[in-house]
Amino acid sequence: VVHLGVDLGGTAIKVGLVDDGGELLSSRSVPTGLPRPPQAICRDIVASATQLLEQENLSWEQVKDLGAGAPGTVNPDRGVVIHAANLGWWDFPLREELSRLLPRNLPVYIQNDANVAAVGEYLAGSAKGAASAVVLTIGTGVGSGIILNHRIESGHYFGGGEFGHMVIVQGGRSCNCGRKGCFEAYASATGLIHLTEEEMVRSPESLMHSIAAQQGKVNGRTAFDAMRAGDQAGSRVVDLFLSYLACGIANIINALQPELICIGGGISKEGDTLLLPLREKVNREIYGGSQLPSTRLQICTLGNHAGMIGAAMLGRMQE
Amino acid sequence: VVHLGVDLGGTAIKVGLVDDGGELLSSRSVPTGLPRPPQAICRDIVASATQLLEQENLSWEQVKDLGAGAPGTVNPDRGVVIHAANLGWWDFPLREELSRLLPRNLPVYIQNDANVAAVGEYLAGSAKGAASAVVLTIGTGVGSGIILNHRIESGHYFGGGEFGHMVIVQGGRSCNCGRKGCFEAYASATGLIHLTEEEMVRSPESLMHSIAAQQGKVNGRTAFDAMRAGDQAGSRVVDLFLSYLACGIANIINALQPELICIGGGISKEGDTLLLPLREKVNREIYGGSQLPSTRLQICTLGNHAGMIGAAMLGRMQE
Repeated sequence: VVHLGVDLGGTAIKVGLVDDGGELLSSRSVPTGLPRPPQAICRDIVASATQLLEQENLSWEQVKDLGAGAPGTVNPDRGVVIHAANLGWWDFPLREELSRLLPRNLPVYIQNDANVAAVGEYLAGSAKGAASAVVLTIGTGVGSGIILNHRIESGHYFGGGEFGHMVIVQGGRSCNCGRKGCFEAYASATGLIHLTEEEMVRSPESLMHSIAAQQGKVNGRTAFDAMRAGDQAGSRVVDLFLSYLACGIANIINALQPELICIGGGISKEGDTLLLPLREKVNREIYGGSQLPSTRLQICTLGNHAGMIGAAMLGRMQE
Repeated sequence: VVHLGVDLGGTAIKVGLVDDGGELLSSRSVPTGLPRPPQAICRDIVASATQLLEQENLSWEQVKDLGAGAPGTVNPDRGVVIHAANLGWWDFPLREELSRLLPRNLPVYIQNDANVAAVGEYLAGSAKGAASAVVLTIGTGVGSGIILNHRIESGHYFGGGEFGHMVIVQGGRSCNCGRKGCFEAYASATGLIHLTEEEMVRSPESLMHSIAAQQGKVNGRTAFDAMRAGDQAGSRVVDLFLSYLACGIANIINALQPELICIGGGISKEGDTLLLPLREKVNREIYGGSQLPSTRLQICTLGNHAGMIGAAMLGRMQE
């Protein structure tokens, strides 16, 4: 049997076929094509799933269940997307609409996308076998999913799990959420680009200028690449970025102390360049000091597939 | 049947007799008398319990269990206080030592003191009937206990649940924990006293000077009392203090969105003077805005008894 996993975002609808072990067998991606009605998006999800099954010579009878991750606030019990700003949805019954369109009666699970990515890492990736984990996805923003005691902790009204919108610099940089000084405003790729640009203004001699020109623009790699080429201004940017990231991570550890914190998203491709100095900074900040055992930091292993794999495995979280 | 609850602190050992409904029947308090060996403290706990029972004409046969809250990092599974800085304990087998001294074989439970206070509020106080709650105790420091899904969430290595040591002002005021800018450094009574003193330097005309002189020193009530007497400088201090408190509370809501956040400790005696403006500030900061249902803020109801009552009810959390 196989599981269908849907990763629904503002740009693309990704549908994957996943086996019982959490392996992605094949996948399709089609544009979300906003703005358009949610029903049309659901039809594309089911059409993509059908094409995937045909392509793999599988029938709908071999599909055990379908899971979907959607951005925004999702009530998995009622099967409703309460609010998804970037899709323009309010109270859309995603589970019911997908069930209606499926050619046979299947269990359908829905969940917030950051939680789905955390489920993927927890059941089939970097956090496999852990008792608890927080998965941080460092991209344009900072997404987070919390798993404690085999449960997704998304809050009493499904609006929690947003460590990206924890203020770490009161009165600091404006965040899209309306607050000032959120973790996301500093520790996301967007935050890193801001820090890079600020340092480039102060350091006209920095290699970051030529690297950014080659890359076409300042991006999340500019400072890291400059640092690797021996540029001191680049090192300062990376160090400052890691200090903000460590601050938020130490906050999460002091609050929840999960067994693991897993870092995904584009910047996690830096691997040990990110992880080793980050661990050192975090160890200096955690409550009780580093002589007692505490949360381990790791890099996520499922990459961009975490959403599809996690969605496909949502049924497993109910067991 | 009755339950014995022990609230062990750096200053006092409080022992209470609690009924099945979480009502405190009677209690005794003796000085902790530091520095002295943990075994002597345990003997005093059992002696106090014995005296309480005699005084209430109860026998040890009528005691169902004993629970104890201790400061620091506590492993309730092993029954060991891993580290309690203010008691000077490292790896002390508190459960075993208490069991050994008790005149009959009773279930003994131990837990961190902030978690115990949260259990008290959750089972018998302001959070009774809630599915999840975070209890903040605003005293010299900011203690916190997290209860999700009927479980105390104290972290994989029992070092979590420390929202007081979440940085909200990166690089800000030094905290006892070694970090800078912790929630506790701003939103505790100590933090409030700092804010009050800073404003008193700026405002020689403020009523806070005469109020502090009457009170003998600046304390956590000085600014609130000045505000009630119409003093603008006092109002500014209270407003600033509430802004820091709201910042940390909004962080907790964005992260965990418990059904309730309950505020205890000395400052909670301000009641609605604290709660009403605080709710307004928090609502402006929570993710997704205030149009969606979210965490309710309340004042704790058990006061200084939360520790004894929560400790006495630890056994109930195992059911």
